Amino acid sequence: MPELRRDPITGRWVAYSPERMRRPMPYRFPDVNEVDAEQDPFAEGNERFTPPEVYAVRPGGGPANGPGWKVRVVPNRYPALRVEGDLDKEGVGFYDKMNGIGAHEVIIETPHPGEQLEDLALVDFVQVLKAWQARMLDLAQDLRFRYLQVFKNFGPLAGATLPHAHSQLVALPVTPLALKEKLRAAQAHFLAKERNLFEDILRYERQVRERVVLENAGFLVFCPFASRFAYETVLMPKRQESDFARTDGHDLVLLADALRQILRLYRRGLEKPSYNLVLVTAPVRTPRKDYWRTIDQDFRWHVELCPRLGGIAGFELGTGCFMNPVLPEVAAEQLRKVQRDA
Amino acid sequence: MPELRRDPITGRWVAYSPERMRRPMPYRFPDVNEVDAEQDPFAEGNERFTPPEVYAVRPGGGPANGPGWKVRVVPNRYPALRVEGDLDKEGVGFYDKMNGIGAHEVIIETPHPGEQLEDLALVDFVQVLKAWQARMLDLAQDLRFRYLQVFKNFGPLAGATLPHAHSQLVALPVTPLALKEKLRAAQAHFLAKERNLFEDILRYERQVRERVVLENAGFLVFCPFASRFAYETVLMPKRQESDFARTDGHDLVLLADALRQILRLYRRGLEKPSYNLVLVTAPVRTPRKDYWRTIDQDFRWHVELCPRLGGIAGFELGTGCFMNPVLPEVAAEQLRKVQRDA
Repeated sequence: MPELRRDPITGRWVAYSPERMRRPMPYRFPDVNEVDAEQDPFAEGNERFTPPEVYAVRPGGGPANGPGWKVRVVPNRYPALRVEGDLDKEGVGFYDKMNGIGAHEVIIETPHPGEQLEDLALVDFVQVLKAWQARMLDLAQDLRFRYLQVFKNFGPLAGATLPHAHSQLVALPVTPLALKEKLRAAQAHFLAKERNLFEDILRYERQVRERVVLENAGFLVFCPFASRFAYETVLMPKRQESDFARTDGHDLVLLADALRQILRLYRRGLEKPSYNLVLVTAPVRTPRKDYWRTIDQDFRWHVELCPRLGGIAGFELGTGCFMNPVLPEVAAEQLRKVQRDA
Repeated sequence: MPELRRDPITGRWVAYSPERMRRPMPYRFPDVNEVDAEQDPFAEGNERFTPPEVYAVRPGGGPANGPGWKVRVVPNRYPALRVEGDLDKEGVGFYDKMNGIGAHEVIIETPHPGEQLEDLALVDFVQVLKAWQARMLDLAQDLRFRYLQVFKNFGPLAGATLPHAHSQLVALPVTPLALKEKLRAAQAHFLAKERNLFEDILRYERQVRERVVLENAGFLVFCPFASRFAYETVLMPKRQESDFARTDGHDLVLLADALRQILRLYRRGLEKPSYNLVLVTAPVRTPRKDYWRTIDQDFRWHVELCPRLGGIAGFELGTGCFMNPVLPEVAAEQLRKVQRDA
């Protein structure tokens, strides 16, 4: 029997129908490309192919924009938004527009073309998370920006165009609606119950365990009750903190450990799937002061991982609801089995 | 200079950055499959491969589930929701779920494997729209259903799995959030201005013309001011009507004409792109009576067409905003040029 589930944070409904797994899949999508090291703009030695770096980890020292780095952050060569200029809002007829002010940076996660994020040694993985944090702290000082979206697209079905391991950071001059809705839901829950919505979810998932994939001292990794995507997982910190940029080094090590584990499970269990990683965190500033009243108590940053095995099609575009052929309990059990069989 | 635009209906921001058109595109996506007529479950003569039909146009008469039809509607063999059973809502811990009650039907648009929707003669195209309408009117009588989503996925990047021309109808026991937001925006505009939001958009677009692609006596086809997708278009009826199912036969002919024209422009201008079609219309019923007070005056059904040239990636999932490399004015000019050169 199919089932409809409502996400407790966004209010979005998801239709689960295991039968849809039996659909014929006539199209063969491209595999993730092999990287040609000479052509790879993100490889060590090819630093001249990117705009000048804004951040780098160089354990042995050395000049900027040369080799010798572990992690390197550069402006996106094809930016969706630009840093230069003033925020200028304008009405066009009865429409609204503004200058595309913002930032669009690429976090190059490794100097080596053949290496993916989950291949990194733990210390190097932590450096990637520290790079996210360092860039967020720097960009947060720019008064024009309201939200910093860190994300990662891996593989053709997740919208990636370059196979060299990288994540991205976009600074937006607006607080996105999707985030406002989450903030509103978190605040409403807190005002009604004097409890944190994310702590409530964490406790319930730890108690029933059927959707838990793995856990360490700092993070619970589980398939959310109303997962939009088959094998979707959330990495939820156990410690209350609304802002990822304030997370301490100890928790970053634990996040690196949990994230590396689940990415390795995806690779083994789902045959190197395309996926998106989305960091959900507090906005850096907003004129809507009501969010701020309780945000440190009611909102918690977290990471969403969305394997992209099927498409986002007309039904999803029209309704904002999703169809998912794999119940999260089944997905979690399968991912746990991949881990046990390792 | 990149630009941010706000959609007047959904409030969603879209970042326009023509430079992103210059990104390297390393992946080669599969073309739309050729249909193998013998294997094709939707071809005339293969009616036994589908569940029994719920609607068909058989100009020469003849028994159900045999050949001789022009348009045929069957339940989806891999349904996301099922018609059988009672609506049963249940709390699970502090989550919410309900039985997956609904309907999921396939509108087979032609008996011929090689033919696409835009290849149909106008009279046959109108029969497809009449099939949508007939199924909506029938399903609307089921008191369990609240929204009927008609959509079409064409091509691998739009989530289609079968190449034979078809559209789909999903009946949902909930009013989707995405629709509620549109209803709210339409009502707020009407209460503030005593004017219809969609009529205001239509008039403004007809006046400035820069985003208009084509027009006939019943419909304006334009690239919306804050298009999410490159070359996205909206088909807006000129006559006020909140509910597609109440549109008369004359307007259906005009819709078929406009839709066939724009689909042909897509095929010629964008080289047979994957696309989604989404019908946005009034819900069939809702317990939130406030929507109903003014819906016939403030809301207008319309069709959205979304070519899928790029992916929906981590940025879009995280923010609900979109990145679009093609300004709608540029897209409209290019589509008009394709029409002039025909």
